[in-house]
Amino acid sequence: MKHVIDLDDFSLQQLQYIIDLSAQIMQNSAEFAQSCKGKIMATLFYEPSTRTQMSFQAAMKRLGGDTIGFDNPMNSSVAKGESLKDTIKIIAGYVDIIAMRHPMAGSAKAATFYSDAPVINGGDGSHLHPTQTLTDVITLCREKGTLNNHVIGLCGDLKNGRTVHSLAKTMSKFEGNSFVLISTPQLALPDYIKNLLDMRGCKYTEVNSLKEAIGTLDVLYMTRIQGERFDSPEEYEKQKGVFVLDRPKMELAKNDLIVLHPLPRVDEIALEVDDDPRALYFKQAVYGMYGRMALIHTLLNNPEFEITPAHKGKKSSNPCCNAKCITQQEKYLYPGVYDMGGEAVCEFCEEEV
Amino acid sequence: MKHVIDLDDFSLQQLQYIIDLSAQIMQNSAEFAQSCKGKIMATLFYEPSTRTQMSFQAAMKRLGGDTIGFDNPMNSSVAKGESLKDTIKIIAGYVDIIAMRHPMAGSAKAATFYSDAPVINGGDGSHLHPTQTLTDVITLCREKGTLNNHVIGLCGDLKNGRTVHSLAKTMSKFEGNSFVLISTPQLALPDYIKNLLDMRGCKYTEVNSLKEAIGTLDVLYMTRIQGERFDSPEEYEKQKGVFVLDRPKMELAKNDLIVLHPLPRVDEIALEVDDDPRALYFKQAVYGMYGRMALIHTLLNNPEFEITPAHKGKKSSNPCCNAKCITQQEKYLYPGVYDMGGEAVCEFCEEEV
Amino acid sequence: MKHVIDLDDFSLQQLQYIIDLSAQIMQNSAEFAQSCKGKIMATLFYEPSTRTQMSFQAAMKRLGGDTIGFDNPMNSSVAKGESLKDTIKIIAGYVDIIAMRHPMAGSAKAATFYSDAPVINGGDGSHLHPTQTLTDVITLCREKGTLNNHVIGLCGDLKNGRTVHSLAKTMSKFEGNSFVLISTPQLALPDYIKNLLDMRGCKYTEVNSLKEAIGTLDVLYMTRIQGERFDSPEEYEKQKGVFVLDRPKMELAKNDLIVLHPLPRVDEIALEVDDDPRALYFKQAVYGMYGRMALIHTLLNNPEFEITPAHKGKKSSNPCCNAKCITQQEKYLYPGVYDMGGEAVCEFCEEEV
Repeated sequence: MKHVIDLDDFSLQQLQYIIDLSAQIMQNSAEFAQSCKGKIMATLFYEPSTRTQMSFQAAMKRLGGDTIGFDNPMNSSVAKGESLKDTIKIIAGYVDIIAMRHPMAGSAKAATFYSDAPVINGGDGSHLHPTQTLTDVITLCREKGTLNNHVIGLCGDLKNGRTVHSLAKTMSKFEGNSFVLISTPQLALPDYIKNLLDMRGCKYTEVNSLKEAIGTLDVLYMTRIQGERFDSPEEYEKQKGVFVLDRPKMELAKNDLIVLHPLPRVDEIALEVDDDPRALYFKQAVYGMYGRMALIHTLLNNPEFEITPAHKGKKSSNPCCNAKCITQQEKYLYPGVYDMGGEAVCEFCEEEV
Repeated sequence: MKHVIDLDDFSLQQLQYIIDLSAQIMQNSAEFAQSCKGKIMATLFYEPSTRTQMSFQAAMKRLGGDTIGFDNPMNSSVAKGESLKDTIKIIAGYVDIIAMRHPMAGSAKAATFYSDAPVINGGDGSHLHPTQTLTDVITLCREKGTLNNHVIGLCGDLKNGRTVHSLAKTMSKFEGNSFVLISTPQLALPDYIKNLLDMRGCKYTEVNSLKEAIGTLDVLYMTRIQGERFDSPEEYEKQKGVFVLDRPKMELAKNDLIVLHPLPRVDEIALEVDDDPRALYFKQAVYGMYGRMALIHTLLNNPEFEITPAHKGKKSSNPCCNAKCITQQEKYLYPGVYDMGGEAVCEFCEEEV
Repeated sequence: MKHVIDLDDFSLQQLQYIIDLSAQIMQNSAEFAQSCKGKIMATLFYEPSTRTQMSFQAAMKRLGGDTIGFDNPMNSSVAKGESLKDTIKIIAGYVDIIAMRHPMAGSAKAATFYSDAPVINGGDGSHLHPTQTLTDVITLCREKGTLNNHVIGLCGDLKNGRTVHSLAKTMSKFEGNSFVLISTPQLALPDYIKNLLDMRGCKYTEVNSLKEAIGTLDVLYMTRIQGERFDSPEEYEKQKGVFVLDRPKMELAKNDLIVLHPLPRVDEIALEVDDDPRALYFKQAVYGMYGRMALIHTLLNNPEFEITPAHKGKKSSNPCCNAKCITQQEKYLYPGVYDMGGEAVCEFCEEEV
């Protein structure tokens, strides 16, 4: 069974295969317009996300398939106290593939235990969001021609942003990439990711000024920085301009810089930047739809595309104590752990047990 | 005009036709994949029910048709005070078939007066839910090979469960079936259904222990039993285990027992039972989708399939006084009654006038 | 780029083209059943309107296309503070055409600045609702055979009803039409529309009794009249019967009168009128669906159908001060004005600056 829970489960060849297929679909969309005809996708959005849901729906429909689903748990059987297991088992009987988003970490993985249909993780709490990372990587590859040898700036809230973590992990697997980490000390990239970069021989520097760093970058990945993450409102007001991308900063950047953002943005990119040809965040959303098309097409039509989880969990007698882990809500899930860099982590939420 | 309001309106031949057709579609789904191409179904859910709505949507889409609809009355014209009549008249102008769910008894029947498209009752308050009963009957027939000569256990809340009432009424029409009614005295099957069983020469016994009864059953139909239905919380706590199906009880059951449940379940079936091959409630949901496909396909494509209401109402000057009857809300509906076992009942909600 | 923001942007030839095409589709729907195959429409309903949304969805699906969208801003990225610009830019990357409804005047026009896909205005606050007017005009033309030489009664709230304003403006462009304006003085048609009628040599009379006027009419356009628009509840109770269409009033009307209503109605048309063959408001909804089909088909398939805005805005330094104008919410929109009968009006909401 093929499930897309974590982009880390893909080999580099598989990742490149999906990227190349997405380009092929984008160029010859008519050829793929019936490739999922008669197939149905469930979009189970336990937490609303219009953007992601519409992207999945458009992707499935552009392949000739159709969708059913919900976007509001209060209208669903969940409100009657139904378990994730029961919902997944039943819906998997109706459809050919499931895309789900859920507020609890590990929920998509939990769903794979009960689904006869492939499950795509459309975001499980603050844990993983593999199709967003796929979107980022496709954009980078298509616009730069390669996934190697880039100086990649990550700017904003590097502590809490799951898309940043996932992008750093993925890009560190390719050769010659280095990172410039642009944030306040409070919002710095977590140690475990910096350790991973070290382990893979990936260089990085930490700086606190976008203006000073921007001239060195090939890629700038902007993220939303939330006021409440700062020590005080005054601190936020004092610092926020430092991390806002505007036209003067763009003037200091390379001609072939590309600016990405997972969207929605609030005010970390000034609107005046939108018309700069290096601003690719809207085009990135289009690449994302084609990436999802490549993924769905492959899961439904390519029996040789095997996805092997990077980590195998083993049963544990210690339950996870992360309050945002799906095991806290769905009590029938057995505790599982695996080793991650010497630490035993919960196989669902990947937090230390 | 063909409307599916009450499964009682089907002859036994018609019921068997739909069961057989659902099996045929399940086995040769490709043959039916375009049978409703170009047709549109409205799913009008005046009260949310993800499961039922998704089952109807998947059914229509697997026949090559499409759906439009709503699942939240607050987002609809209903919130602006529009009558059921006006909504149905307008929507029937947009679509080829309507599936509706509504909190008031008799609402689906009321809709038939104003719809130029076939109406399928997807649940009208606590009154009827014919496609759930169809699901139950298909599962029973497909898994047991016949609808005759079964010992059928009905367990849980037999007083308030409309699916239980409807199943008892339908199965009592077939030969040689008998019932074991497993509940507390407070939650016993209503007298009017027991009278009907008597009238049809259908045997039944009333017991209060699932453990003692399970060994005699060919079919066990479990239903949710709600704490608040008991005289006191203490009473509930004391008794609830008696009606919970778990592995020890399954060990007392026949090898060819089948366990059904309309879902969602809460805790009346322990999760350990799910892996027992006799637990068919998830497969039942799949049968339900194919049953809905058979129904939709027939209503849209088979002009010879006539549905004649089992009862014909006649005008009455006495309005219905059931507060949950659609006539209380939609004042333009003329009061109608018919005779049901010597009692005059409202033709909408079928409660005594 | 073709956007449908205001029906005034259509020439009379274009309007007739859409009317004729809608008739052709209605008569040969099979011929058009695949005309938008592979195309996707986004239905972006920032404010719920089941009727309009379902009409757009049914229209797109009857042309072989498909839809994605939302009907609840609270479930969308809007709730995370995303600008209209960003939402439109991204969604326009997913789809081929957008139908949108939004509570702020000028929102649809604002969307055209950022959309690579055609935008259809499905209602922008109390400003415009061109597909409703199209619906009205199609019904009138199809049922009367011509758009010229009618005596048209407009009844109810003529002050606040955008559909009334738009119908008056559109019908005054055709020859020989005159209007009977039936309302209280407080709810009279605004002066600027009466001036327009004068300018176009279109006769009108203002009366306060439907009963007295109805005998002279070829067309009666009823609208909802809201209690809270009257000076006092007593005033409302005293007057409302004067504007309710019932069977006795229908007896005073011509045999070939046609009665229209944009729906939903509340109680301004008695239910007893529904069975009168002159009551066309339900059929009107069907014409509306075919009108939307004609529009969508044309926008997606006819490259020669050019839509030129009737007015061209020019930059202004004075921002609009209408609190319900989209420029109040989306601050990045530059203020634009144009001349309308000697007054400078905001190019978004068309209120005087």
